[in-house]
Amino acid sequence: MNPRVSSEDKVVREIQSAFVGQRSGSLRVGMGDDAALWQAGRGQETILTCDWFLEGTHFLRDKHPPDAVGWKSLARAASDIAAMGGTPRCFLLSLTLPADCTGKWLRSFLRGLRRASRALRCELAGGDTTRRNEILINTAVIGEIPAGHAVLRSGARGGDLLYVSGTLGEAELGLRELRRQRGMAKVSSNSFLRKHLYPEPRFALGQWLAKNRLATAMMDLSDGLSSDLPRLCLESGVGARIEACSLPCLTRSHAKDATELALNGGDDYELLFAVRPKDASKIETKFRGLPLTRIGEITREKKVLVEQHGRSRPLISAGWDPFR
Amino acid sequence: MNPRVSSEDKVVREIQSAFVGQRSGSLRVGMGDDAALWQAGRGQETILTCDWFLEGTHFLRDKHPPDAVGWKSLARAASDIAAMGGTPRCFLLSLTLPADCTGKWLRSFLRGLRRASRALRCELAGGDTTRRNEILINTAVIGEIPAGHAVLRSGARGGDLLYVSGTLGEAELGLRELRRQRGMAKVSSNSFLRKHLYPEPRFALGQWLAKNRLATAMMDLSDGLSSDLPRLCLESGVGARIEACSLPCLTRSHAKDATELALNGGDDYELLFAVRPKDASKIETKFRGLPLTRIGEITREKKVLVEQHGRSRPLISAGWDPFR
Repeated sequence: MNPRVSSEDKVVREIQSAFVGQRSGSLRVGMGDDAALWQAGRGQETILTCDWFLEGTHFLRDKHPPDAVGWKSLARAASDIAAMGGTPRCFLLSLTLPADCTGKWLRSFLRGLRRASRALRCELAGGDTTRRNEILINTAVIGEIPAGHAVLRSGARGGDLLYVSGTLGEAELGLRELRRQRGMAKVSSNSFLRKHLYPEPRFALGQWLAKNRLATAMMDLSDGLSSDLPRLCLESGVGARIEACSLPCLTRSHAKDATELALNGGDDYELLFAVRPKDASKIETKFRGLPLTRIGEITREKKVLVEQHGRSRPLISAGWDPFR
Repeated sequence: MNPRVSSEDKVVREIQSAFVGQRSGSLRVGMGDDAALWQAGRGQETILTCDWFLEGTHFLRDKHPPDAVGWKSLARAASDIAAMGGTPRCFLLSLTLPADCTGKWLRSFLRGLRRASRALRCELAGGDTTRRNEILINTAVIGEIPAGHAVLRSGARGGDLLYVSGTLGEAELGLRELRRQRGMAKVSSNSFLRKHLYPEPRFALGQWLAKNRLATAMMDLSDGLSSDLPRLCLESGVGARIEACSLPCLTRSHAKDATELALNGGDDYELLFAVRPKDASKIETKFRGLPLTRIGEITREKKVLVEQHGRSRPLISAGWDPFR
């Protein structure tokens, strides 16, 4: 007879068994103990970040496929590692589950989470589970970067040029598609919906910019450009001027309000970064197929302005703000 | 004019300002950026752990003083670091708040959290905040231990002697006192209530046991001995036999069911550890004033038994199990 295994331990074992065989060298002790033991590489700094992913706030149980909840809960948290130019290594999963989600829902969730874990090469190191009427997720991600190479939000200077990766507003358009569909989202047909459900953090770009010291400041766009750009400016003690006509928007056939979507749409997980004018020639229009677009510049004056139709107006934060 | 600051950013700034001046050498970048940058000491392994602390599940907004919620949210998570023999270094705070808790409640919560942060020498490194109807807290703690010294759950062997620190059941008795009182808990008068509200992880004991390689296996008691001991046994591939009359119980004047409280009461955050017989003479009855009690032994046979009134019975897990 084995020592009695509690119901909580059964959920933990379900999670463990989904990640069997994933152990690499740097994680000496993973799930099952009080805590995980991990060792950073020589000369590396450790990057620490965490993110909420909450039913009702960030996803809906009857609309978001459980495997997308699994994928996105890790991908969006790991995007903060990309935003510093780092490499994700391992993560802690905190999960609350209603009793009726410990079977099929949990298994599908774990499939999506494992797929993200493999794609990002970011191992499950441990976590905490408990029962609750709602599905609550918190993901803490641990990453690495060679000491002194991390790109912060605070390094932008007046005259630096501002760039973003990808096309802005795609994930928000995907969210509209999800709201339009009845019941659980059907993914296959719609690339915008896929971007909303299965975001892909820009690790390769972030690492390339950090390694070559090309970005003076960087962050990922999670709440929308109009909310995130002022944060970068505040940390750097600068302002910015962006040109609406330069934004990498959706085509108007996809969205009539493409400019608004590009300014205020959340969840794109593209990178926003500043580059010294002397380095601008090194930023090409694509990085390994991913578009890079110059959208404006950093200013010494601490205003954040958007130029549109020949006029300049203050950029109003209208992205995601839970406390508004 | 400063770049517009969102409501979410105001909550973040309230949190940042509560921790101003706490920065040490090992944390190069703290709150305000995409992620934190931290560097482990030479020859150290990094310990990673996280814990839920949820309104309705782990505390009640109308009964638990907000500063106790702050203290306990860090202390209980950091206890997992003590359980490996490590030293806490920094933590990530994930917090959701109802709109009416962003003022007085938040400030009192932050006072308790900062007090714990100073007492444990564990700095705030970052986190995530969002709005929600309930107060949800997740705390990820990062600690250190000299490589190879961590005490795992998996090292116990048949014949090892089993010890616990402190008195078991005190926090559970404190919870009873809290339930008995009307409205918000009044702390000053009751030491058991204080233990429930302001637990003190056993860092010094854990570090001493790890440094001197005296414990073959160790964990902290968070869910109660009857739930936690089987977990240690399972990880070690062993069983255990404990003696009810040896348990460090409350006196019967405090609780008529003192033995049940010692077996099943949660939230004590005392340490449970196994010691080779040859090292038993090094474990005195007190460590710096903290009682250490031998409660039984590890067995090769994989049963977890309790001996009481001359009879032996299987130990039934009756501690905290959210999925039961």
